[in-house]
Amino acid sequence: MKDILEAYKNGDMELEQVIDHLKDLPYEDLGYARVDHHRKLRSGFAEVIFAQGKTPIQVAEIAKRLYERENSFLATRADQAQYNEVKKIFPQAKFEERSGVIFVKDEKLVPRGKIAVCTGGTSDIPVAEEAAITAEMFGADVVRIYDVGVAGLHRLLKVLPELRDMNAIIAVAGMEGALPGVLAGLVDKPVIAVPTSIGYGANFGGLSALLTMLNSCAEGIGVVNIDNGFGAGYLAAQINRLVVNAIEKK
Amino acid sequence: MKDILEAYKNGDMELEQVIDHLKDLPYEDLGYARVDHHRKLRSGFAEVIFAQGKTPIQVAEIAKRLYERENSFLATRADQAQYNEVKKIFPQAKFEERSGVIFVKDEKLVPRGKIAVCTGGTSDIPVAEEAAITAEMFGADVVRIYDVGVAGLHRLLKVLPELRDMNAIIAVAGMEGALPGVLAGLVDKPVIAVPTSIGYGANFGGLSALLTMLNSCAEGIGVVNIDNGFGAGYLAAQINRLVVNAIEKK
Amino acid sequence: MKDILEAYKNGDMELEQVIDHLKDLPYEDLGYARVDHHRKLRSGFAEVIFAQGKTPIQVAEIAKRLYERENSFLATRADQAQYNEVKKIFPQAKFEERSGVIFVKDEKLVPRGKIAVCTGGTSDIPVAEEAAITAEMFGADVVRIYDVGVAGLHRLLKVLPELRDMNAIIAVAGMEGALPGVLAGLVDKPVIAVPTSIGYGANFGGLSALLTMLNSCAEGIGVVNIDNGFGAGYLAAQINRLVVNAIEKK
Amino acid sequence: MKDILEAYKNGDMELEQVIDHLKDLPYEDLGYARVDHHRKLRSGFAEVIFAQGKTPIQVAEIAKRLYERENSFLATRADQAQYNEVKKIFPQAKFEERSGVIFVKDEKLVPRGKIAVCTGGTSDIPVAEEAAITAEMFGADVVRIYDVGVAGLHRLLKVLPELRDMNAIIAVAGMEGALPGVLAGLVDKPVIAVPTSIGYGANFGGLSALLTMLNSCAEGIGVVNIDNGFGAGYLAAQINRLVVNAIEKK
Amino acid sequence: MKDILEAYKNGDMELEQVIDHLKDLPYEDLGYARVDHHRKLRSGFAEVIFAQGKTPIQVAEIAKRLYERENSFLATRADQAQYNEVKKIFPQAKFEERSGVIFVKDEKLVPRGKIAVCTGGTSDIPVAEEAAITAEMFGADVVRIYDVGVAGLHRLLKVLPELRDMNAIIAVAGMEGALPGVLAGLVDKPVIAVPTSIGYGANFGGLSALLTMLNSCAEGIGVVNIDNGFGAGYLAAQINRLVVNAIEKK
Amino acid sequence: MKDILEAYKNGDMELEQVIDHLKDLPYEDLGYARVDHHRKLRSGFAEVIFAQGKTPIQVAEIAKRLYERENSFLATRADQAQYNEVKKIFPQAKFEERSGVIFVKDEKLVPRGKIAVCTGGTSDIPVAEEAAITAEMFGADVVRIYDVGVAGLHRLLKVLPELRDMNAIIAVAGMEGALPGVLAGLVDKPVIAVPTSIGYGANFGGLSALLTMLNSCAEGIGVVNIDNGFGAGYLAAQINRLVVNAIEKK
Amino acid sequence: MKDILEAYKNGDMELEQVIDHLKDLPYEDLGYARVDHHRKLRSGFAEVIFAQGKTPIQVAEIAKRLYERENSFLATRADQAQYNEVKKIFPQAKFEERSGVIFVKDEKLVPRGKIAVCTGGTSDIPVAEEAAITAEMFGADVVRIYDVGVAGLHRLLKVLPELRDMNAIIAVAGMEGALPGVLAGLVDKPVIAVPTSIGYGANFGGLSALLTMLNSCAEGIGVVNIDNGFGAGYLAAQINRLVVNAIEKK
Amino acid sequence: MKDILEAYKNGDMELEQVIDHLKDLPYEDLGYARVDHHRKLRSGFAEVIFAQGKTPIQVAEIAKRLYERENSFLATRADQAQYNEVKKIFPQAKFEERSGVIFVKDEKLVPRGKIAVCTGGTSDIPVAEEAAITAEMFGADVVRIYDVGVAGLHRLLKVLPELRDMNAIIAVAGMEGALPGVLAGLVDKPVIAVPTSIGYGANFGGLSALLTMLNSCAEGIGVVNIDNGFGAGYLAAQINRLVVNAIEKK
Repeated sequence: MKDILEAYKNGDMELEQVIDHLKDLPYEDLGYARVDHHRKLRSGFAEVIFAQGKTPIQVAEIAKRLYERENSFLATRADQAQYNEVKKIFPQAKFEERSGVIFVKDEKLVPRGKIAVCTGGTSDIPVAEEAAITAEMFGADVVRIYDVGVAGLHRLLKVLPELRDMNAIIAVAGMEGALPGVLAGLVDKPVIAVPTSIGYGANFGGLSALLTMLNSCAEGIGVVNIDNGFGAGYLAAQINRLVVNAIEKK
Repeated sequence: MKDILEAYKNGDMELEQVIDHLKDLPYEDLGYARVDHHRKLRSGFAEVIFAQGKTPIQVAEIAKRLYERENSFLATRADQAQYNEVKKIFPQAKFEERSGVIFVKDEKLVPRGKIAVCTGGTSDIPVAEEAAITAEMFGADVVRIYDVGVAGLHRLLKVLPELRDMNAIIAVAGMEGALPGVLAGLVDKPVIAVPTSIGYGANFGGLSALLTMLNSCAEGIGVVNIDNGFGAGYLAAQINRLVVNAIEKK
Repeated sequence: MKDILEAYKNGDMELEQVIDHLKDLPYEDLGYARVDHHRKLRSGFAEVIFAQGKTPIQVAEIAKRLYERENSFLATRADQAQYNEVKKIFPQAKFEERSGVIFVKDEKLVPRGKIAVCTGGTSDIPVAEEAAITAEMFGADVVRIYDVGVAGLHRLLKVLPELRDMNAIIAVAGMEGALPGVLAGLVDKPVIAVPTSIGYGANFGGLSALLTMLNSCAEGIGVVNIDNGFGAGYLAAQINRLVVNAIEKK
Repeated sequence: MKDILEAYKNGDMELEQVIDHLKDLPYEDLGYARVDHHRKLRSGFAEVIFAQGKTPIQVAEIAKRLYERENSFLATRADQAQYNEVKKIFPQAKFEERSGVIFVKDEKLVPRGKIAVCTGGTSDIPVAEEAAITAEMFGADVVRIYDVGVAGLHRLLKVLPELRDMNAIIAVAGMEGALPGVLAGLVDKPVIAVPTSIGYGANFGGLSALLTMLNSCAEGIGVVNIDNGFGAGYLAAQINRLVVNAIEKK
Repeated sequence: MKDILEAYKNGDMELEQVIDHLKDLPYEDLGYARVDHHRKLRSGFAEVIFAQGKTPIQVAEIAKRLYERENSFLATRADQAQYNEVKKIFPQAKFEERSGVIFVKDEKLVPRGKIAVCTGGTSDIPVAEEAAITAEMFGADVVRIYDVGVAGLHRLLKVLPELRDMNAIIAVAGMEGALPGVLAGLVDKPVIAVPTSIGYGANFGGLSALLTMLNSCAEGIGVVNIDNGFGAGYLAAQINRLVVNAIEKK
Repeated sequence: MKDILEAYKNGDMELEQVIDHLKDLPYEDLGYARVDHHRKLRSGFAEVIFAQGKTPIQVAEIAKRLYERENSFLATRADQAQYNEVKKIFPQAKFEERSGVIFVKDEKLVPRGKIAVCTGGTSDIPVAEEAAITAEMFGADVVRIYDVGVAGLHRLLKVLPELRDMNAIIAVAGMEGALPGVLAGLVDKPVIAVPTSIGYGANFGGLSALLTMLNSCAEGIGVVNIDNGFGAGYLAAQINRLVVNAIEKK
Repeated sequence: MKDILEAYKNGDMELEQVIDHLKDLPYEDLGYARVDHHRKLRSGFAEVIFAQGKTPIQVAEIAKRLYERENSFLATRADQAQYNEVKKIFPQAKFEERSGVIFVKDEKLVPRGKIAVCTGGTSDIPVAEEAAITAEMFGADVVRIYDVGVAGLHRLLKVLPELRDMNAIIAVAGMEGALPGVLAGLVDKPVIAVPTSIGYGANFGGLSALLTMLNSCAEGIGVVNIDNGFGAGYLAAQINRLVVNAIEKK
Repeated sequence: MKDILEAYKNGDMELEQVIDHLKDLPYEDLGYARVDHHRKLRSGFAEVIFAQGKTPIQVAEIAKRLYERENSFLATRADQAQYNEVKKIFPQAKFEERSGVIFVKDEKLVPRGKIAVCTGGTSDIPVAEEAAITAEMFGADVVRIYDVGVAGLHRLLKVLPELRDMNAIIAVAGMEGALPGVLAGLVDKPVIAVPTSIGYGANFGGLSALLTMLNSCAEGIGVVNIDNGFGAGYLAAQINRLVVNAIEKK
């Protein structure tokens, strides 16, 4: 803003130009959606496509715009039809079908800083993969530790030393959702809890796991929405980047 | 019934007498309540007074009728005023104020068979005491193991050998309510889960703990109502009696 | 553990070996799942496959591993595709389609101790069968008593003598879910209540029956999750085994 | 309306008078409330005072207006202060404190037609009394049958013959709320179900009993709001009046 | 029972026969279901088939048994496949597809006593038809008054005189569910309220209409479960029969 | 009414005619539905067809009746089959498939007064279109401003000047539903908030957005049902008409 | 903003001053609260004090700051202690105790444009008064029409002509909450619906009335939060001002 | 563990000693509670006293044990009586009454790394203080920014530069709970969202704010339980420590 005002004072810009410029925020208007290129400056990570409810053409178009600036893109809650359309433009795009994630990674990106993604059971893996891929897209080095639920505590204890080495731990669990609480009682790193809708009966679409995680007696847990692997991966990547930047700044 | 029909055939009873007899079930009608002396025959344990909503005089009166047959009585959800009234008749009556339990034990009762009552935290103790006293009234030998919640798993592991020796384990926990699931994953005995209303925010009066317990991935758990220590103590005593009787029958 | 420490002291094991051994818990890591062979020692029953969310190949593979040790296996929440895959390896495997249960029984297993599985209506039978088969897999002799709901109490009274002879009674009911409460008022054995999602309107996927069972005025009831026939069968088998073992120990 | 239009045609009324008359509905405007004297013509029963949220003076004033026309009045959800004010005008007024009911009966009213009011437990009696007094105010002959809950079915069976003789049965129950369903399975008369907020834990202020009653497998049940004894008494009196009128019309 | 006991005294029956007889309640055991022929004596109406969750063969078989005794039958929550099977035995059977009702009426049944079935909108008609057919099966003369919802009160006022002539009024409404309250404020007959699941958004599958009906300020309303046309028709028929019988008894 | 009464006094109408006339409200009875032509007089806007649950023929028939009087019609919650039927009569009818809206506009209608329809995201557009078309049908000039959600506040700030020029603003948002609160804090015009069911997990079908909107700290917000674009468009058109009429009256 | 930039260009302001100025928003920071004097420019109405959770001193202090600029102030959710403190500074301040509203009106304010505030019952009056006083503070001429609930529709019909003359109608109702829907079906003006928490049982603190209002079949209704009289008064005043301004602009 | 095993091999320890040692975990058993001194090693922060449900003596006793090791302690959910007892031992203890926090800080602790605690309104301050004090106890340098809610976005924008400098931001908000989402859209640091129970009506004790936060469209948000200032402070301190340690490690 200082630059603009200076230019204006120096006569390099007219008053109307200044006002226009301030209004002219750096997003592209595609009619049905506004692609936000400014975002990376503001929040540190590029925009991600929430594909649910968009047409295949729309998803492909936004992907193209993002790729032009970032050499990568990520779409969540996507389906096969959207992937087919995206693939026409990006043959290298990958699709994790059960997770609903389409992505092209920036090949030059070198992962720095470790985070872990753990699941209580096998059925929680699709949500965990959404988290893991998101965190990888945003620069983290991700360790996957699946099916270590609390019904068999001994399974968990074996991987403890590895977990204590992470910058953040994502704990994905359905049914009773006790995994994050157990993890937070055992390690001294932030635990990001992801309830999943896995289960039946009185789990009410993941509500049971969500409430368990919010009411956990163990401290150091931040909870995200049910099945929101993306949100967890994003938050973990953000914490990880803070630590990595702190190390490198020195 | 056979006896009545025989007596009738032999002319020892009139037809009207037979029909009256069949109707005349063994309870005393106090006007405001019907004391069910038949119950012990039917369900194996004497009736218990649900004191909430009854006047002190009513509680004392029913206690008197029960004591005349059982040499003991138990009242749950009771308050100080009810206790004061009961004490006029039974100076030996005890009152666990935080648990709301008034009782006189049958001194000749010898406890047989062990059950454990565990709590996640200190705040769950009143509900646990309701469970423990109930089980003791119905003949069990109760071991109390309090404040062994899952936030510190190591606390729990120390008492494991003792727990493996029980006929049933009552697990009382509020907040996230993970204790029963952890216990059931570690022992091979029936776990009776009691959610408590301890906590705040999104625990919704114990709903969080209740859902956790119902959705537990560990097997061998039966859940009772929120704060229902009495129900848990009763069920544990019933399982315990089954085992004790099986041993003694031989 | 004593054995390992002795071996170590005697020089039969190196320090590293001891530590490795302690870590090396007896489960097999299949990548997507960890099969827990230790479980039988710990909880008395072998692991059961929760098939929902697993691929047919995964279910078949885990079944194979379990069968190698147990001569039997049980998979719940399974579908036809999973059964087809399992059948390639185990032509003798049975599939209860409406209950979603695949199993191979150990032919040498002799059932001991009786439990009953009751339903309120015809529509509750699939959940009841899941309970019955589970209890049979774990050694119980199961009596099925179906369609004895409380709308016609007289139906229930006829089977009462039989019920009084059981080690545990599983009561499966949807809609209003009153069956367990009525049963518990009539017998002196533990009642395991299974709410089902059968019904419509304000039953809210089984919530109505669940709340009824938790709030029952009758004592001696432990509740499991909605439609959780497996959990009920497991708990009943556990209580039954306690009694059977008590008799045989003598 | 015919009369008014005739009077108008005959010139006995002016056009403005007719329109005024049609607008001038027979209620008195007290400023804070409109007393509806027309109601008896329309719905067959006089208006009842919903006292909650009204000042003592307001309750007394409305009572006075109603008494002037009906020789009786009934106020529900009333408290001691309101009663004190009412008593200044009507020394003969009665107050059922636990039910919150103030009333003066029309001494010339002869009860006709029988209805029954049953409760599951002692604690449900206040709600039952609200129902019973309401039905009596509206002309029914009320039989009170209290503490016949389903935990002890035998208690209920004894009073069955009496119940089969009623025009309607009000069944008041808290906790699990199974009483109406059991009654409706045994008699062929309309059952009006009143859930009460008695209980604790997962009864959620009467929700559990409400859902049970709505989901009952037994037919012939109409449910009213939680603790709404008045509504049940009113509906029972209405059905009773239908039958009584049918008999007398002949 | 008197007869049996007399026969026994006279030596016409052996003791064992008596006991057997008392146990041998008049239902037929089909294995998967128990057909209750005693029901008509007990509750005044024959059993009705709840078809949901039963196989086509089962529905047809039960229909056959009921028809043999009643010359009629009614199945609710039925589908096309069940109808096809029933039609093989009863070519005269009718199927109301949107209501899911299969029935054969007893041709000799003469309807007596009038009830009305009203709906708020066109979309509520299937539930209303379930109610109407049920009431007709049980002997009532049913008047259908559809699409008279409260958004246009004037529609309702036109049919008021007709409604005041009924023994009972069934009011079926979704969305806001205000119809029963409005009706009960205008007539002096019992109103049976049926919330429907018609609507979207915050109607939560009929919960909105259900709560409205339970909280209605107008008196004389009994509510049944969401979409439970059958229950409403049954209750209306029961009230109607009471009145009709009262008239005829004279 | 005055006219009728005058005619009656003058002898131009018989008494029966008068009464008939008062009853004969101006709607057409199609059997399954009553088309309300009076409505425009009463509420200012013609009736709209709620197509859900109606047959294609019924929708087309009602559309025809409405068009005869209004030269336009609008059907909401419609599907392709209903559109196909309508198109046979009105080839000019348009169908917004994702919004489920069928309509024919009155070509002579000139839009007056501006309202805005904003959405938080791309996925909220179908609900927004239902609102926009409804408002256009009822005479408003609608500005569409889509995808200006609060995650990127800067997007919103750019369109602020335009928004300040409106008579009413419709804010459509799913997920967290914060858009209406942000808008109401920035402009001084009525904001009509429409929660949508867009989202997943703990948004519970739009409940999350609904609660956010109801609890907004910003004033000047009226909320409609989840996904109820029609209701929002109607209310906005009504406010708009008030203003337009006020200007023109002068 | 233009002014500031001009001043800057002309050299009347330094660059730092411009930036400071843009940051220096017109609110006063009292430490615990920020008083927003800019608000009137932005939203057209001055800030209102939400007193709940503030100390009496804080409320009085903020009132003083607001009065200095506006010659009036309004505090909602206030209690007696807060009023006592406010009265020390403003002896003329009024306190509507049941509504929790403290206010001083600007004596020079002349009300323009009519709105109506209606209630279903006497108990809804406190919420209605909060709405009425708020609307009066913001310049509307308010007509109060209380106790016209739908249980007696005839009460409502009498005031209809008056209602048709309003710019907006606020409808306040508890229990079933049907009043707004009935009003919106009868008038062609915006209806602002306020559910109240009046009632008991299954009204769940006003949820029942809220859902009724959201699901209303009548159009032209905007709903505010339960008991939120303030929000309704604000929205009504805003619509009223739009109309008044439109008239005066001419 | 290696040390113990070495000692054992060398004969310095007996086998029983080894096993005892492994069991002898470093907590003190006070009978009613187990004080966990091991915790600091395990999770990095000392144990905190959850005072709710404990007696004043118990709180004081545990405080004493913790202080002996840590030179500080923190008790949450505490009341005046507990504070009085604690003060007898620690005259320097402070009590934040509205937050329910008792604490003694370690005077030698030097805060490192910045975090911010923001609130939407004045009423959210008690929860915010619990968060701030917790984070300070665990070593963070806390900046308090209160009353910057989204109803006035301009308030928030002024403090943005300061917020961008933090290691973590705690956002505390009741009612609609939009603050965390707005913050997360503007900064690139982890946002910890704390819903509060401030509000009324359909905020359902904080549920509204909780759902808003979970469903936020902005990324980088971890949510804790309603009113759980402690949990948020703990998690923020943990993230802060990670960053501080990363900087210092270099």
